Amino acid sequence: MTENWHKRFDEERARLNEIVLAGAPLGIKRFFALDEQVYEAGALPAKTKELLGLVASMTLRCDECVSYHLIRCREEGVTREEFYEAFNIALVVGGSIVIPHLRFAAERLETLLETR
Amino acid sequence: MTENWHKRFDEERARLNEIVLAGAPLGIKRFFALDEQVYEAGALPAKTKELLGLVASMTLRCDECVSYHLIRCREEGVTREEFYEAFNIALVVGGSIVIPHLRFAAERLETLLETR
Amino acid sequence: MTENWHKRFDEERARLNEIVLAGAPLGIKRFFALDEQVYEAGALPAKTKELLGLVASMTLRCDECVSYHLIRCREEGVTREEFYEAFNIALVVGGSIVIPHLRFAAERLETLLETR
Amino acid sequence: MTENWHKRFDEERARLNEIVLAGAPLGIKRFFALDEQVYEAGALPAKTKELLGLVASMTLRCDECVSYHLIRCREEGVTREEFYEAFNIALVVGGSIVIPHLRFAAERLETLLETR
Amino acid sequence: MTENWHKRFDEERARLNEIVLAGAPLGIKRFFALDEQVYEAGALPAKTKELLGLVASMTLRCDECVSYHLIRCREEGVTREEFYEAFNIALVVGGSIVIPHLRFAAERLETLLETR
Amino acid sequence: MTENWHKRFDEERARLNEIVLAGAPLGIKRFFALDEQVYEAGALPAKTKELLGLVASMTLRCDECVSYHLIRCREEGVTREEFYEAFNIALVVGGSIVIPHLRFAAERLETLLETR
Repeated sequence: MTENWHKRFDEERARLNEIVLAGAPLGIKRFFALDEQVYEAGALPAKTKELLGLVASMTLRCDECVSYHLIRCREEGVTREEFYEAFNIALVVGGSIVIPHLRFAAERLETLLETR
Repeated sequence: MTENWHKRFDEERARLNEIVLAGAPLGIKRFFALDEQVYEAGALPAKTKELLGLVASMTLRCDECVSYHLIRCREEGVTREEFYEAFNIALVVGGSIVIPHLRFAAERLETLLETR
Repeated sequence: MTENWHKRFDEERARLNEIVLAGAPLGIKRFFALDEQVYEAGALPAKTKELLGLVASMTLRCDECVSYHLIRCREEGVTREEFYEAFNIALVVGGSIVIPHLRFAAERLETLLETR
Repeated sequence: MTENWHKRFDEERARLNEIVLAGAPLGIKRFFALDEQVYEAGALPAKTKELLGLVASMTLRCDECVSYHLIRCREEGVTREEFYEAFNIALVVGGSIVIPHLRFAAERLETLLETR
Repeated sequence: MTENWHKRFDEERARLNEIVLAGAPLGIKRFFALDEQVYEAGALPAKTKELLGLVASMTLRCDECVSYHLIRCREEGVTREEFYEAFNIALVVGGSIVIPHLRFAAERLETLLETR
Repeated sequence: MTENWHKRFDEERARLNEIVLAGAPLGIKRFFALDEQVYEAGALPAKTKELLGLVASMTLRCDECVSYHLIRCREEGVTREEFYEAFNIALVVGGSIVIPHLRFAAERLETLLETR
């Protein structure tokens, strides 16, 4: 059921971004650009930055944002152990209200570790 | 898929409100009344008030509340350009965590602009 | 449609917890244990503690957490009237942004009151 | 330093409420009335309702709201042990981000237990 | 005590912005620029946009952001009645947890209406 | 004014923790232990973990938590450039509502970089 979720996720995200950017004023387009650039390697490596995005998304409880950063973290080579240590920080900081998002992430992570 | 979403939304909302109000104590009924009255035209026009409801809903990241205020804003004559300027404020105030709700709103807005 | 939701909820929760706990470091396992123990009867009865969990979940707007505490509150003998007074507090504290979660809870509560 | 905080708190709250209610439209006045009534004894006793208000305030991280419900809970006879069990639920649900508010509440509670 | 708060507010804000922007990478500077531009008059007038910023700040419970938009709304000619209708929407959307910020805003508004 | 803030911060934190832990049930004590352990070096280095705590604290808008992680990050050798890249992620994820906390952090960071 969650098999290939990341492909469907990328497609749906691209489809909706197209709708947004067709109607969007310059300010929204610039925000989207900033949102890309902020995760690029700098003084901190891209892997660390994606982990920062992942933990922030989990404590703010946004499954779509969690999905995006799971994929990107995986591309940067984050291992299962590293993922779970990041999840653990999100859980302690954000509390039990984070648990549904942790369950969601854990299931999606398994497919990601198998298929990529 | 999102075609006629606003009709289904209105029906589902009405169906669930009936369940809530059947069991609800006076305090909940009064809250629902306040929640209606607060958007009525006064010193500020209804259009401005619905935009306030829309941006608050988007920064608080509630898709159902966003849907409701999209419909009401449209009834008050908000144009595509005005919607996107409001979305832009929600995005800057609330950050990238708002983006999934912006995508959701943008898609629903297109149907609304076509069908109403 | 919502019939037997609580059985499916329990099964899905168990299935996902198994995935989480298979990969989880000790810190996550310990958090899950604390999350169980905190609702056990002590100076405050279990019923009061489950109501505290329910209202916190509703104001923090987590449907899955609401579902869990609805089931547990029902097991502790919370009546329809008591549920609605708790919902009312959540609504006043958290505002209209809570209403979609109140509707969700009200529908699920009806099935729970009928089938248990 | 925190001695008699509850007297200063009550005075400041009364002073500011007077400013708000002088300028407020009917809708705000009615909301303030609902906010009083919702904690009155009904199917659930006032003590339980105040504890619900306390835990919701702590997980939503509002020190002023926490202060108010600490005072009201104490008036309803909540004991130190019961307070700490409620704090514990707020901490587990809301996570470590709640800790500064827990520290705040713990200090204020001590004065309250001594002086009332 | 709150007399001339807006002057002190502007000075402190300028002092701290200088510290931030001295150390800030390009991404932060660009964000600050977007945050200015988004409130400029466009399809929606500046007054409406500042009211959107005010209500979003109040429901997200940020006193500093509320202060900023109070000043800007006043510059755009928002009247006491219009302010209170906007506060009322923030209160209904965000719930009683917003009340401390409403009290804060109401007191600051009085000085603003007198001194500007 | 912010000179030596970290010493006063540590002292106040220790003073209040003593009050909390004196009254706290086992569940709170265990939570405090988990909150310490989760930042210890494992698959991810302590420096990365402290940055995760910092960004989560900033997007959740808790100045006290930000202060704590600023100190700990500095102890782990985080440089000014790395701090600002982390702040930038928090700003983009959390939006302009984060700016007051970014200003707060930037000022405290300067003292920290000078005195440690």
